[in-house]
Amino acid sequence: MSLPNHFELLATDGHARTGRLTTRHGMVQTPSFLPVGTAGAMKGMHWREVRDAGADIVLGNTYHLMLRPGAERIAALGGLQQFTGWGGPMLTDSGGFQVMSLSELRKVNEHAVTFRSHIDGAKVELSPERSIEVQRLLGSDIAMQMDECVRLPAERSDIERAMQLSLRWGERSRRAFETAPPGYMLFGIAQGGDVPTLRHVSARGLVDIGFHGYAIGGLAVGEPQSVMLAMIDETAPALPHDRPRYLMGVGTPEDILEAVARGIDMFDCVMPTRNGRHGMAFTRFGQINLRNARHADDPRPLDEESSWPATRSYSRAYLSHLVRSGETLGAMLLSEINIAYYQQLMHDMRAAIANGTFEDFKNQTRAHWARGDIAER
Amino acid sequence: MSLPNHFELLATDGHARTGRLTTRHGMVQTPSFLPVGTAGAMKGMHWREVRDAGADIVLGNTYHLMLRPGAERIAALGGLQQFTGWGGPMLTDSGGFQVMSLSELRKVNEHAVTFRSHIDGAKVELSPERSIEVQRLLGSDIAMQMDECVRLPAERSDIERAMQLSLRWGERSRRAFETAPPGYMLFGIAQGGDVPTLRHVSARGLVDIGFHGYAIGGLAVGEPQSVMLAMIDETAPALPHDRPRYLMGVGTPEDILEAVARGIDMFDCVMPTRNGRHGMAFTRFGQINLRNARHADDPRPLDEESSWPATRSYSRAYLSHLVRSGETLGAMLLSEINIAYYQQLMHDMRAAIANGTFEDFKNQTRAHWARGDIAER
Repeated sequence: MSLPNHFELLATDGHARTGRLTTRHGMVQTPSFLPVGTAGAMKGMHWREVRDAGADIVLGNTYHLMLRPGAERIAALGGLQQFTGWGGPMLTDSGGFQVMSLSELRKVNEHAVTFRSHIDGAKVELSPERSIEVQRLLGSDIAMQMDECVRLPAERSDIERAMQLSLRWGERSRRAFETAPPGYMLFGIAQGGDVPTLRHVSARGLVDIGFHGYAIGGLAVGEPQSVMLAMIDETAPALPHDRPRYLMGVGTPEDILEAVARGIDMFDCVMPTRNGRHGMAFTRFGQINLRNARHADDPRPLDEESSWPATRSYSRAYLSHLVRSGETLGAMLLSEINIAYYQQLMHDMRAAIANGTFEDFKNQTRAHWARGDIAER
Repeated sequence: MSLPNHFELLATDGHARTGRLTTRHGMVQTPSFLPVGTAGAMKGMHWREVRDAGADIVLGNTYHLMLRPGAERIAALGGLQQFTGWGGPMLTDSGGFQVMSLSELRKVNEHAVTFRSHIDGAKVELSPERSIEVQRLLGSDIAMQMDECVRLPAERSDIERAMQLSLRWGERSRRAFETAPPGYMLFGIAQGGDVPTLRHVSARGLVDIGFHGYAIGGLAVGEPQSVMLAMIDETAPALPHDRPRYLMGVGTPEDILEAVARGIDMFDCVMPTRNGRHGMAFTRFGQINLRNARHADDPRPLDEESSWPATRSYSRAYLSHLVRSGETLGAMLLSEINIAYYQQLMHDMRAAIANGTFEDFKNQTRAHWARGDIAER
């Protein structure tokens, strides 16, 4: 049985698409970049800054939230949107990916993953059904099926086993989601590593199960960008044209530009905030390392034409000083500067697609990045 | 020769005073609490939040700024107010106190302090003249004389030696400051530890030299509150009635309330931000430890009647989660909540002094703190 569709495609330009997704907590414009608020908070940013920067949806990590403060506690406090004060749409991952990367002593079998919490060592079982239950308790607008993600390079047999397991878990996730009230969404996740035929099998399998939207998982896990883009080319056309497509855990501005060109609608990544904490700024001129000595005496802002106040007002010298001194304010400013840049990029892509000028926009943006930073003073 | 007076006393109530200090970068209302922006940044706060919380002047630490990014660099970038983007009045300490507490291999003689930088181990000399030069390069609205501060308890002979040295350094600081353009101020610092007669000698000596304002130093360095208040009682009456009086490095809200009652006009302290980073909130109900288990499921805000948005909107449960998870946002929110509480307290004291109701205000505020937090749910 097909699930209701909350996605509306507004325009396409080549394979690129722009649309909107209606959630219980507000509208999401696509292509959309989801800032990652891991444990119910954006690192170094107030929620109002996330909103002001142009984000209309954020991601929360089920693994972190189920361990602390706990899904039942968040449910009792009105759900994640109210608990955090963000208020807007939230997508949660299934928790499976972080069980693999953060916990100890994990054991995967057909039924579930068993692991020890990285916080207190407690033994926890996460099944596809429990993952959905947790995401429902969190009040997630978009829940993700539990899957198994294989780091690349990997043996084809491992990739295939994990992909088939993910399909079976997808079916169980869909069944577990059936009692969710209308308006909440469940996305399936295509796996298949870097093997085109497995990607096709996975996509077809997911479509047979039927989800509100479809994610492409298992990319940005160690493979070159060319492989990632090739796998998008293999997978996206096999997904329903009228449903949202979400490329998980991606990526650089360039990754996102290229993936939008290939028909992707949604992205999430820690890169803008994580790199911000390490003194890197994403700008129209490409990525700028504020630890570079050339900035220490430079009174100019990162980009005087930016629409984001911190990007056009704070001097490179001041940002450089904050980064070198390890001041929290440096991480705070660079996180908002980077999130604002990502959101501006998404905004500009949406406008270009609506105008039918996406290819031009893409070429100009790449050319700008390639020219690099403004000349040293 | 007496220096021009930029302080205007508007009202007194008992020994408590309210007034205003006119600086080159704006007006300061007293009693005033100066948030500490050590190295040109407030830890965990944007400057606009410092301003919105009600601060009209902040403190920068000369020791940190001279070592990184360097006073000459800040001067070339337009001074500390422009460099940081704060824009408003700034007071800088002399650097002497932090040489004593942070650097290694320091050596004090009549001429200067020699030390090794805690950042790169470079050997640096700081004399009263260089301290003034550095503070002038920083563009500080209020510079402090270099002094030697003795940690209590201490031998009377040590206290006396440091006090006399501080007087001689005060005189040299005053001479070095003579070329400063009009509108910038230099404050002398009274020392004398916990010995009343030495406090009198110090205060009289400073008045003979003549400064724009007078600080009481060498308190909040290990002595009980009763000793601190007694030393204020000894020192304040010996300072000119028409000049601002600044109690350095103090303190808790209670310390401040009691010191204002004894005629102090200005305060600075890292406590609101430092305690905020450690999960403590200053409120109308006293200090609240958000690590306490009682808050984990409590949907109520810290103080629903607060005029500060974060204090009345975020739940104790969310703040508790952020603190336990070590999320930066927890430190950010509690820092602004605490700075806002301190500024509200200063605002309310100013109003009470102007209305002639300071004693009532003081008793009510103390009674509120003594009642403690709202009942557990």
